[in-house]
Amino acid sequence: MFTLPVSETVSLKLLEQEDAANIFFLVNESRDHLREWLPWVDGVLSPESYRPVIEMWLKQFAEHNGFQVGILYKGELAGMIGFHKIDWLNKSTSLGYWIGDGFQGHGIMTDSVRSLVSYAFSTYKLNRIEIRCGVENVKSRAIPERLGFQLEGIQRDGEFLYDHFHDLAVYSILSHDWK
Amino acid sequence: MFTLPVSETVSLKLLEQEDAANIFFLVNESRDHLREWLPWVDGVLSPESYRPVIEMWLKQFAEHNGFQVGILYKGELAGMIGFHKIDWLNKSTSLGYWIGDGFQGHGIMTDSVRSLVSYAFSTYKLNRIEIRCGVENVKSRAIPERLGFQLEGIQRDGEFLYDHFHDLAVYSILSHDWK
Amino acid sequence: MFTLPVSETVSLKLLEQEDAANIFFLVNESRDHLREWLPWVDGVLSPESYRPVIEMWLKQFAEHNGFQVGILYKGELAGMIGFHKIDWLNKSTSLGYWIGDGFQGHGIMTDSVRSLVSYAFSTYKLNRIEIRCGVENVKSRAIPERLGFQLEGIQRDGEFLYDHFHDLAVYSILSHDWK
Amino acid sequence: MFTLPVSETVSLKLLEQEDAANIFFLVNESRDHLREWLPWVDGVLSPESYRPVIEMWLKQFAEHNGFQVGILYKGELAGMIGFHKIDWLNKSTSLGYWIGDGFQGHGIMTDSVRSLVSYAFSTYKLNRIEIRCGVENVKSRAIPERLGFQLEGIQRDGEFLYDHFHDLAVYSILSHDWK
Amino acid sequence: MFTLPVSETVSLKLLEQEDAANIFFLVNESRDHLREWLPWVDGVLSPESYRPVIEMWLKQFAEHNGFQVGILYKGELAGMIGFHKIDWLNKSTSLGYWIGDGFQGHGIMTDSVRSLVSYAFSTYKLNRIEIRCGVENVKSRAIPERLGFQLEGIQRDGEFLYDHFHDLAVYSILSHDWK
Amino acid sequence: MFTLPVSETVSLKLLEQEDAANIFFLVNESRDHLREWLPWVDGVLSPESYRPVIEMWLKQFAEHNGFQVGILYKGELAGMIGFHKIDWLNKSTSLGYWIGDGFQGHGIMTDSVRSLVSYAFSTYKLNRIEIRCGVENVKSRAIPERLGFQLEGIQRDGEFLYDHFHDLAVYSILSHDWK
Repeated sequence: MFTLPVSETVSLKLLEQEDAANIFFLVNESRDHLREWLPWVDGVLSPESYRPVIEMWLKQFAEHNGFQVGILYKGELAGMIGFHKIDWLNKSTSLGYWIGDGFQGHGIMTDSVRSLVSYAFSTYKLNRIEIRCGVENVKSRAIPERLGFQLEGIQRDGEFLYDHFHDLAVYSILSHDWK
Repeated sequence: MFTLPVSETVSLKLLEQEDAANIFFLVNESRDHLREWLPWVDGVLSPESYRPVIEMWLKQFAEHNGFQVGILYKGELAGMIGFHKIDWLNKSTSLGYWIGDGFQGHGIMTDSVRSLVSYAFSTYKLNRIEIRCGVENVKSRAIPERLGFQLEGIQRDGEFLYDHFHDLAVYSILSHDWK
Repeated sequence: MFTLPVSETVSLKLLEQEDAANIFFLVNESRDHLREWLPWVDGVLSPESYRPVIEMWLKQFAEHNGFQVGILYKGELAGMIGFHKIDWLNKSTSLGYWIGDGFQGHGIMTDSVRSLVSYAFSTYKLNRIEIRCGVENVKSRAIPERLGFQLEGIQRDGEFLYDHFHDLAVYSILSHDWK
Repeated sequence: MFTLPVSETVSLKLLEQEDAANIFFLVNESRDHLREWLPWVDGVLSPESYRPVIEMWLKQFAEHNGFQVGILYKGELAGMIGFHKIDWLNKSTSLGYWIGDGFQGHGIMTDSVRSLVSYAFSTYKLNRIEIRCGVENVKSRAIPERLGFQLEGIQRDGEFLYDHFHDLAVYSILSHDWK
Repeated sequence: MFTLPVSETVSLKLLEQEDAANIFFLVNESRDHLREWLPWVDGVLSPESYRPVIEMWLKQFAEHNGFQVGILYKGELAGMIGFHKIDWLNKSTSLGYWIGDGFQGHGIMTDSVRSLVSYAFSTYKLNRIEIRCGVENVKSRAIPERLGFQLEGIQRDGEFLYDHFHDLAVYSILSHDWK
Repeated sequence: MFTLPVSETVSLKLLEQEDAANIFFLVNESRDHLREWLPWVDGVLSPESYRPVIEMWLKQFAEHNGFQVGILYKGELAGMIGFHKIDWLNKSTSLGYWIGDGFQGHGIMTDSVRSLVSYAFSTYKLNRIEIRCGVENVKSRAIPERLGFQLEGIQRDGEFLYDHFHDLAVYSILSHDWK
């Protein structure tokens, strides 16, 4: 397996077809808390439904357009993180992430986000990284705040969640502000 | 030619291959003022370079993903306006526009934007429309402000313009605020 | 909506996905008279079946290969008309059309055909336009005859209609004969 | 090589990449008389230009949409013949052909056309076959006339030949008239 | 039909869509003996299942990458033979074949293989042809042995057959060893 | 960067677009010894020529069809190794590899091959892995021999190298023979 080390306990793994069941089970066990803020949870129906998705994620990587990776905590799949896409013209990207039940509170996600911010600035030489969180998603918003991202505004009705729109807090960090 | 009437003097036209020379000449004559705020101006080299672009614009329309149209003022091509794409999941889109030298000051663009905002809300049943303008592009910012858009924030270094990044003012309007 | 004005009461509209139900209902109500001369009527089963068809029609337009448009009579969908494709090498195309129950007898189709013949000669600079009608489809044949098309011959068994072949009358008009 | 026997001296061969030079040389030697009635002759510039064309011809065969074949006379490439495409809905096709300098006058083409007419009716179960010839192309018109095709009409300005349009005589034969 | 003559009684035919039922019935009748050595037999369910397969075979031919042909014995479909693909860089290919019940013992396959070996060396100018047979498939191995192929080795577990792996005997012949 | 650890000094890295210059320079410096056994060396002309190749390699990975990876020795690019493709039906694959000037003699390649053999058997659950080496390429042959691969035969004229064919030694290992 191909991984990017993040800390002593955390690493990021490019998911292969062999991981389909693992992701499904993690999402499935964490369905209740995940669907509070993620629009795709109800569409996850079986391990098989991840097969074309994993291929799509790896093609995104192949096309030099960002990547989606599994977060391993002490070797166990704990969540996912990734770049939605890369805007090479404007040297900009955005980050999304989620963590499964039982893995919260270890700083796993803060470390993972820090690692990908570094990747985007040092390997991809990007200039700007954005994170959007539900305005009331306090735990998620804590991460960009902790890492020095700046709040730029509130995107009203930015996302549709099953039966309602909700507002998104827009954070960004620029490369010259990063360490 | 297929047009959408906007006012007595203004209409919007789906551009066909036969319009390639007209767009080129309009951009070419307005090069100096357009390149101040638009990143693609230096890439416009000949009428022929618009042939694949026009096909791409019409395919966007065919795929139900927004459209780019020419603005006709008293029958003459005066500028362009369009939806960048449509995010059907979140019922959201964004608008971009430019106007050629000599056509400013007639309210052409305000009328055109108003018309497409209506189109997006009434025909496409969208919920949110966004407009991003260079922070110092006063004329461009006047349009969403005049039409009741709300300023949501400043996207730092949002766009690369030939040799520098500049900040973008992010405006939006929601369907329940329209009319 | 993007339209081409034909007369005070008639205009031609590039159909979008939002028109799927309208076309279906018009065809559905006119099924009996339409299937007498049109081979595709029995294949029309639901509004949804028009979704890929509308995309296909708009891609034809995007590829500069002709277009299919709805005929609006006093704002109501009354029928369709379009170019089957464009043979740019030989500067030639052909036209097809149909009208729904209750819209006949107003000269709607003659006006619509006249308008597209003009479009083909003046905008597309074509040289030849062809119309093929069932030999015994008197109403349909009246249109090219009224507009000065010339009968060139009878195409024996030119079309298969559900359970039998029928002959087609071939009409054409050349650009130097138009007006 | 894969061939369809026509007579003791004539057979039809599916051309492979290995035939590219042979077709080129035949066309090249016969350029003057071929370009009198064929619009593509001036586009034939080198053996290599036939490589994508041969692939396209074989894909047409693979897609069950007709085929283009070389005519062998006593084992030597003498010309080509083929179905332009197959209209399966209307069980109809059309035939085109040309012969190189020095191979005329042996009845090669009449035999080849007869063979493909049989193929279309007996193997493909088609109902109608069409041949279009330049109105003044006496030699070409003699073939459908000799084989019992019926003249259906004159297609005015049916084809553009380098610098002028010319009229086409339209012949057809129906399956119940064959043999 | 397009054929390559092999002997007085045997010829090879490029299969068209019209042959789908014939191949299906031949395979269906010979299912028991074929599935002993061929992994695809259980996947053959109906004549219709051959329609995309025949198109795929003809596209292989169109792409200059080998071909699959029916073996006709006294005009009747007796089996199939073909090149799996062509490795143009290394001027090399491999051959596969099978024969239906009731057609064995006439030397049909030996003649067919000899014919395609000649085709590969003389028409395609290849350098090396390979045949792989189940180690215990005595009848199949007799063919390359009879034609002067050389046994190069045993590919252990080279093929999976429904529920077990079996070893393959690898034979080859080089162009300078052929006649 | 995404890596698979092999030993204390060696790891395998999925190459990204950012590695194009590094691979080029390694190949370029090692041209003389590499072209002795590798057919593609003369085709390597510039760092840019690796851009589509890297995308192709990552698409192979995305399609679950094997992968090509850079070998890092103490963090420095030393060579490459990869699976040519995966034959899932027969649970089989083959391995290729090369190492740059100055990196030989550290056991780097033996460790890398061992690592990928394990990957193929334990992660991909394959049954058979093949390695083909030039018969006279003693150093390359030493690797499968050292790792317990079995020599199955000699593929005569198996590969074309610029101006001559050469024979390949075929080695394999089956999963039940691996540790």
